[in-house]
Amino acid sequence: MAESKVSAQQRLKVVAGASFENTGPGTPAGRYLRRFWQPVYHSVDLRPGRPVPLRILGEDFTLYRGEAGGVHLVEPRCPHRGTRLAAGHVEGEDLRCFYHGWKFDSKGQCIEQPAEESFFAKNVCIRSWPVREYLGFVFAYLGEGAPPELPRFPAFEHFDGLVEVDSYLRECNYFQNVENALDMSHVGFVHGDNRASFSGIGLGRALEAEESDWGVSYTFRRPDGRSRVQQFGMPNVFYMTALPTESDAGWQESVFWYVPIDDERHLQFSLHRVPVAGEAAGRFRERRLARRRTIDLAHQELCAKILAGELHLQDVDPNRVDLVRLQDDIAQVGQGVFASHNAEKLGKADVGVITIRRLWRRELSAMVEGAPLKDWKRPADLAPRAWDLEKEGEAELATVREGARAEIVDIRPFVEVDYQLKRLHGQK
Amino acid sequence: MAESKVSAQQRLKVVAGASFENTGPGTPAGRYLRRFWQPVYHSVDLRPGRPVPLRILGEDFTLYRGEAGGVHLVEPRCPHRGTRLAAGHVEGEDLRCFYHGWKFDSKGQCIEQPAEESFFAKNVCIRSWPVREYLGFVFAYLGEGAPPELPRFPAFEHFDGLVEVDSYLRECNYFQNVENALDMSHVGFVHGDNRASFSGIGLGRALEAEESDWGVSYTFRRPDGRSRVQQFGMPNVFYMTALPTESDAGWQESVFWYVPIDDERHLQFSLHRVPVAGEAAGRFRERRLARRRTIDLAHQELCAKILAGELHLQDVDPNRVDLVRLQDDIAQVGQGVFASHNAEKLGKADVGVITIRRLWRRELSAMVEGAPLKDWKRPADLAPRAWDLEKEGEAELATVREGARAEIVDIRPFVEVDYQLKRLHGQK
Amino acid sequence: MAESKVSAQQRLKVVAGASFENTGPGTPAGRYLRRFWQPVYHSVDLRPGRPVPLRILGEDFTLYRGEAGGVHLVEPRCPHRGTRLAAGHVEGEDLRCFYHGWKFDSKGQCIEQPAEESFFAKNVCIRSWPVREYLGFVFAYLGEGAPPELPRFPAFEHFDGLVEVDSYLRECNYFQNVENALDMSHVGFVHGDNRASFSGIGLGRALEAEESDWGVSYTFRRPDGRSRVQQFGMPNVFYMTALPTESDAGWQESVFWYVPIDDERHLQFSLHRVPVAGEAAGRFRERRLARRRTIDLAHQELCAKILAGELHLQDVDPNRVDLVRLQDDIAQVGQGVFASHNAEKLGKADVGVITIRRLWRRELSAMVEGAPLKDWKRPADLAPRAWDLEKEGEAELATVREGARAEIVDIRPFVEVDYQLKRLHGQK
Repeated sequence: MAESKVSAQQRLKVVAGASFENTGPGTPAGRYLRRFWQPVYHSVDLRPGRPVPLRILGEDFTLYRGEAGGVHLVEPRCPHRGTRLAAGHVEGEDLRCFYHGWKFDSKGQCIEQPAEESFFAKNVCIRSWPVREYLGFVFAYLGEGAPPELPRFPAFEHFDGLVEVDSYLRECNYFQNVENALDMSHVGFVHGDNRASFSGIGLGRALEAEESDWGVSYTFRRPDGRSRVQQFGMPNVFYMTALPTESDAGWQESVFWYVPIDDERHLQFSLHRVPVAGEAAGRFRERRLARRRTIDLAHQELCAKILAGELHLQDVDPNRVDLVRLQDDIAQVGQGVFASHNAEKLGKADVGVITIRRLWRRELSAMVEGAPLKDWKRPADLAPRAWDLEKEGEAELATVREGARAEIVDIRPFVEVDYQLKRLHGQK
Repeated sequence: MAESKVSAQQRLKVVAGASFENTGPGTPAGRYLRRFWQPVYHSVDLRPGRPVPLRILGEDFTLYRGEAGGVHLVEPRCPHRGTRLAAGHVEGEDLRCFYHGWKFDSKGQCIEQPAEESFFAKNVCIRSWPVREYLGFVFAYLGEGAPPELPRFPAFEHFDGLVEVDSYLRECNYFQNVENALDMSHVGFVHGDNRASFSGIGLGRALEAEESDWGVSYTFRRPDGRSRVQQFGMPNVFYMTALPTESDAGWQESVFWYVPIDDERHLQFSLHRVPVAGEAAGRFRERRLARRRTIDLAHQELCAKILAGELHLQDVDPNRVDLVRLQDDIAQVGQGVFASHNAEKLGKADVGVITIRRLWRRELSAMVEGAPLKDWKRPADLAPRAWDLEKEGEAELATVREGARAEIVDIRPFVEVDYQLKRLHGQK
Repeated sequence: MAESKVSAQQRLKVVAGASFENTGPGTPAGRYLRRFWQPVYHSVDLRPGRPVPLRILGEDFTLYRGEAGGVHLVEPRCPHRGTRLAAGHVEGEDLRCFYHGWKFDSKGQCIEQPAEESFFAKNVCIRSWPVREYLGFVFAYLGEGAPPELPRFPAFEHFDGLVEVDSYLRECNYFQNVENALDMSHVGFVHGDNRASFSGIGLGRALEAEESDWGVSYTFRRPDGRSRVQQFGMPNVFYMTALPTESDAGWQESVFWYVPIDDERHLQFSLHRVPVAGEAAGRFRERRLARRRTIDLAHQELCAKILAGELHLQDVDPNRVDLVRLQDDIAQVGQGVFASHNAEKLGKADVGVITIRRLWRRELSAMVEGAPLKDWKRPADLAPRAWDLEKEGEAELATVREGARAEIVDIRPFVEVDYQLKRLHGQK
């Protein structure tokens, strides 16, 4: 078995692009990510009758919403002469090509070829992929064969409060953000100005990372024995607690997905569970809406200027930008679009980074080798934990209330929506 | 002979860039296109004393008009130290380099080297190419040896009316536009909104394409037996009838040339023969001039936005753009800068596309093989034909009236002129 | 020995990028330039507490000024996880990384790792390079081993008057500008409009170039025997006289350095010695300051438009641009980003170009071969010479007045500062 392990690693090196970073079709990391449902778009951004080109994992698609509201994901080009289908016309749940009017149903079957006297449509079909709408996102299964069940987060569906639906684009490889999730020691420096939010959480010493049924349990243990635990779900999900940004009402829970558009840029899709209801929820929504407008500078553009020496972070107006994202941009994009691992000097505080790389490497090797892969599952009790901020003991975190239904709120700054849609649609 | 055919095709595959798409110096398609006169510039755009860098067929030149009005085409760079000659000074019909003042006559002979005490100018010369001005265009012969005669279109020279001189740039390989010319079945979909113009012409079934002395005769035959015929002239000319865009006055005749700037973009140079004279011609010219200003959006930029999912065609103001060109942009640029032929599914309606590819392939193979090439000629009677729109029978199309002299009118929208000149001058 | 010469040239050809043009780390020309102190930045542009990324000779650095005013040059990235250090925080004369707070002193030694319980800082260090501030510039020694002494120009330090500190960026390889310095015959054409400045200097016939202790003495001898001599210092310095641009007060002396940012663009750093003092100096400074604002067009952008055929030099407003630089841009960038030497036709007037290439080729060959290199020195009397403009005889040029201290004045147009800093910071 030792021998086969060696051989697996050797093969991994031989396969072109056998790295975490390269996720295009056919790459090992790309094949692995495609075994899991991925959020790829915001439901609110997809209007009926307005197909869009979509770029995810370095691959091009056509995404559209039919007249009855269904969401469909098919190949990017018409098989007749290769014109982009996103320029076509939606008719019912079908899609008609712009150039010569060939028509495809939502499963990709060609059903009309207007200029042909002897139709050969029945022999023509394009590929389609399963999609689901859930908690404000369009999820897609881009792998081979039948999809697994869509993982659910019942505590985000059923409670009295708001689910903030969010996302941002970062101009670097997604894996740098995956690693950053399991790197608590950056918080005190990258977000060091943010004293209100981060004080008392510690600089990130005494960190532990251990493999769980779902991925990695990542723990910061205080000297008094109380601990804060975040859960990483393989291959690219993070489930964490954080102090709320807008009030002093206890911990907030969030789920993040790190999804490559292509290898040079990625989106983090985020859900935040905010347990406020009634009038308080109304005020909360208003403040969020105001913030969507107030933030009028793209953090990606400010980051580019800062890394280019044109601007310093100290000179940025913190009200006009999402500061936390800008700070993470500087740290991660500052590593380069692809961080080099060759010259790294990792320490004990990098235990999370070391652990997630080990799991990924193990699973990719197994996949390339044809060996069995671990069947990652999230048991109901594998959730983040934190201490009570007011009194001794553990905080009470998200619980399901049957019958309750959370309200979904899009909180993306408008400048972020514009920025991310361009790249999601394939522009560089 | 079958054997030599196979061998020709094999050699064609072996030659680097042996495709219709690649037209740079030394490529088979490039060598073939260079055997024919090509329009390369608008006469009105070339001012005396203002040389320009010119990029055609992936090759760089210097084009200038001397003080006496002659048009000259020479190499792009001074042979002394390599500075671009387009930055130089026109003196008479000669051109003086900006850097050290070497002077060349319009045939490329070096005639002055001011800083040299012992001139060696007589040993220095640069290449020049034959040029002619005809019907508003500068034509150039970029091939080897003595040029053939410049093909003329007497019916466009001698009649009572206007010749509209036009052109547009498309951001894709020229051959996609060549194919589109012989693809009548796109009209009903790509230009399907344009009911007034295209109704009654049919969706493009019952299409026939057959080789002619000049290239391809392309016919749509109606159920009642009447037919509309377009003529394609090898290697890249199209001579067609179309319904006029501005009035209901019968068929209009047009000649198009599809000329690569480089392999990623091309120009269509166009002549439209408009048989209006007197006051009617004045009103016509005024409407055209107004349109040149009204169209203030570059169709190429709108197309890029549409293909990038930023905009949908339905949301474009049709008065501010040349809609027909935008529609063709979407279809052709939507195929990619280079359409892939690998996965195509051609049907009977693609007979024109299939035929033109066959002729091109045959001629390129022969040329590479050193076999004789067909000597394409346009007999006077090889003109487009169409039915009479008012009564039964064939339409009366363009005829020559000796002594009459058409008036030449530039109808390009100003935004198009700006857009195309940048790329013609070599910018990307 | 003839054999070893041949072998040296052969090896030169074999080494990748063995040319004058390629100056990145490890290239022969790059190694050679790194044996000499180079100006890399303007002192006034470097503010305390605001580190900048710096790109010089195709290599990336972090440049910063400590709180006590010292200037320091270190590696571009933190060795921990690779984040760019220019985004970090200056503390005293130290630099702290933005991501996890590792701290480095100005020699590059890591002195803090806040998240680590067992520090391994003492084993971590980054490279630093010697820097000096002199006559308004930051000079750096980017080579191996101990630096030579910084060459000084006492006649620019000690006199009654102003030293204008200047620089401009040109979008082509630096060697084209080196060659242009030793090419007096371009003046009459490239700057031919500039009659006031250049009349009487001649077209550049009767040129001589001979090797000196420092590099090349370049002489234009008038028919009456009087001569003007410029001095080129190996490998990339030029020390010359020129007529002043703003008054009729005799010759002005200047020193230029041609320093690659990377192979596609370079800076010329310039010092002009202006012997005006008292009130006249005040008026002079005011005119210079006014000019810094008046020039509001970047000559690089105008040059790009001119070479792209969008604009002609005749149509440029000469008050809004530095015309001499624009003219040289056209000549040099007009040769291409890299001038091709293959098809050149050099004459007797190119003796300066031929000589400087010969010296460079000889020294590079020796270096690659491991043979001894010439130890270039500038004896005090190796200075430019010119004739007296008023009366017969030689002009009195710069002399040192002990105790006097020249005033340093930054004369760069503000548009130039913006343009050059972007590229110096690594943007393309």
